[in-house]
Amino acid sequence: MITKKQIQFLTSLQIKKYRNEHGFFIAEGEKIAEYLLSSSYKIESIYATSEWFKAHEYKYDSSVNLYEIKANEFERISGLKTPQEVLIVVAIPINQLELNSLKKGLTLIFDEIKDPGNLGTIIRIADWFGIKNVICSPDSVDVYNPKVIQATMGSFCNVKVSYMLLEELFLWNKFLPVYGTTLIGENIYDCDLKKDALIIFGNESRGINHLLNKFISHEIKILSFNDNLLKAESLNISIATGIVCSEFRRRT
Amino acid sequence: MITKKQIQFLTSLQIKKYRNEHGFFIAEGEKIAEYLLSSSYKIESIYATSEWFKAHEYKYDSSVNLYEIKANEFERISGLKTPQEVLIVVAIPINQLELNSLKKGLTLIFDEIKDPGNLGTIIRIADWFGIKNVICSPDSVDVYNPKVIQATMGSFCNVKVSYMLLEELFLWNKFLPVYGTTLIGENIYDCDLKKDALIIFGNESRGINHLLNKFISHEIKILSFNDNLLKAESLNISIATGIVCSEFRRRT
Repeated sequence: MITKKQIQFLTSLQIKKYRNEHGFFIAEGEKIAEYLLSSSYKIESIYATSEWFKAHEYKYDSSVNLYEIKANEFERISGLKTPQEVLIVVAIPINQLELNSLKKGLTLIFDEIKDPGNLGTIIRIADWFGIKNVICSPDSVDVYNPKVIQATMGSFCNVKVSYMLLEELFLWNKFLPVYGTTLIGENIYDCDLKKDALIIFGNESRGINHLLNKFISHEIKILSFNDNLLKAESLNISIATGIVCSEFRRRT
Repeated sequence: MITKKQIQFLTSLQIKKYRNEHGFFIAEGEKIAEYLLSSSYKIESIYATSEWFKAHEYKYDSSVNLYEIKANEFERISGLKTPQEVLIVVAIPINQLELNSLKKGLTLIFDEIKDPGNLGTIIRIADWFGIKNVICSPDSVDVYNPKVIQATMGSFCNVKVSYMLLEELFLWNKFLPVYGTTLIGENIYDCDLKKDALIIFGNESRGINHLLNKFISHEIKILSFNDNLLKAESLNISIATGIVCSEFRRRT
């Protein structure tokens, strides 16, 4: 049985303001729980059915609060259309990004990414391609937004998402090539793509902020193979990210 | 001013049963309207603001019904969270797929694709890469679902989406290689990819129906570059489609 106070607390975590106030976010579902329980994330509490607890005999830290609830109670606390059998409250980690860690490997950078489904899908792509860091401008969607967490399918446990002023990042960078995905860049299939690099993607509707252009060392584009006058003007940002990551990884 | 009957009719088109009964679907927004008005789709009526009509002095066919409505009336007829300034009622075309037209070029095939956002995004990818045909199994999401239409951003006007039993399609096929995207196939980066081919993608959660396996001539996979024990098990189906299309096009 869950109390009114618990329901209030859990539903408040759907909203960024309250997540920051309390220092917690929620993650739901079997797959994401599997990731979380083998990660270094600090778990505050687990709400699950007795069946789920029986099937998952983890050694929980004694500080984790376990609440056995009925399947039909999930709709009162879940943010999902089809609630799952487990909901976990997780402490928002305080982990400063160590910029020097970016010197090896690829880092994906997003200027004002707004759609939670896109960011979640992008984190899943980063995980697939073994990319450890994603950096977003401060006005981007919050990674702890439940829709982002859900769309990652757990991959947020393998990818570090940081928020910072992109100007600061680029002013720090004296080492790495900066690839910018635009509609007028060089054909990506013909470019020299480095294995240590920063790759920046623009906002869903307006592309990369022009104030950042001066930091881009290589403009690249995904070629369209359609000669129609009226045709897709761009690819969805997560699709572009997938193709660009695949191209970088294919060569290295 | 719109009547109650109009509102009833328009909102009924959100549902497949009524779309098929009436033979119409709806499409909303500036960009999609632009595509539609220069396409061969038969337009039944246009609901738009006076500003939109002023800015778009097309030569409408006399059979098209034009309704000038106020911006705030759109929320009563729109399926969108943020209604646009134009909503178009379009006749569902009756255009049989001519199988022989598949002999040239690439065709994307989907076995039981369920998510409207995914199908819409895939149509946009097909448009980008100049792929004319998408074929879905009959149990897939309806292309005229407003969420699919919206996610295509207009690209449905350039790509023909057909529904048929995939067994029938493969029994017809005596000519083309059939590439199946699986998690155990050959590394796509090393494969010989033909420019005339059928490419089949499985359902979002269970992959390709095993009854179709015998029709696949080449199993391909997108390599993961992550050695973690726990990592993304798969890519979102639209991401996989984007990467596969890019690989096929890059080589031809």
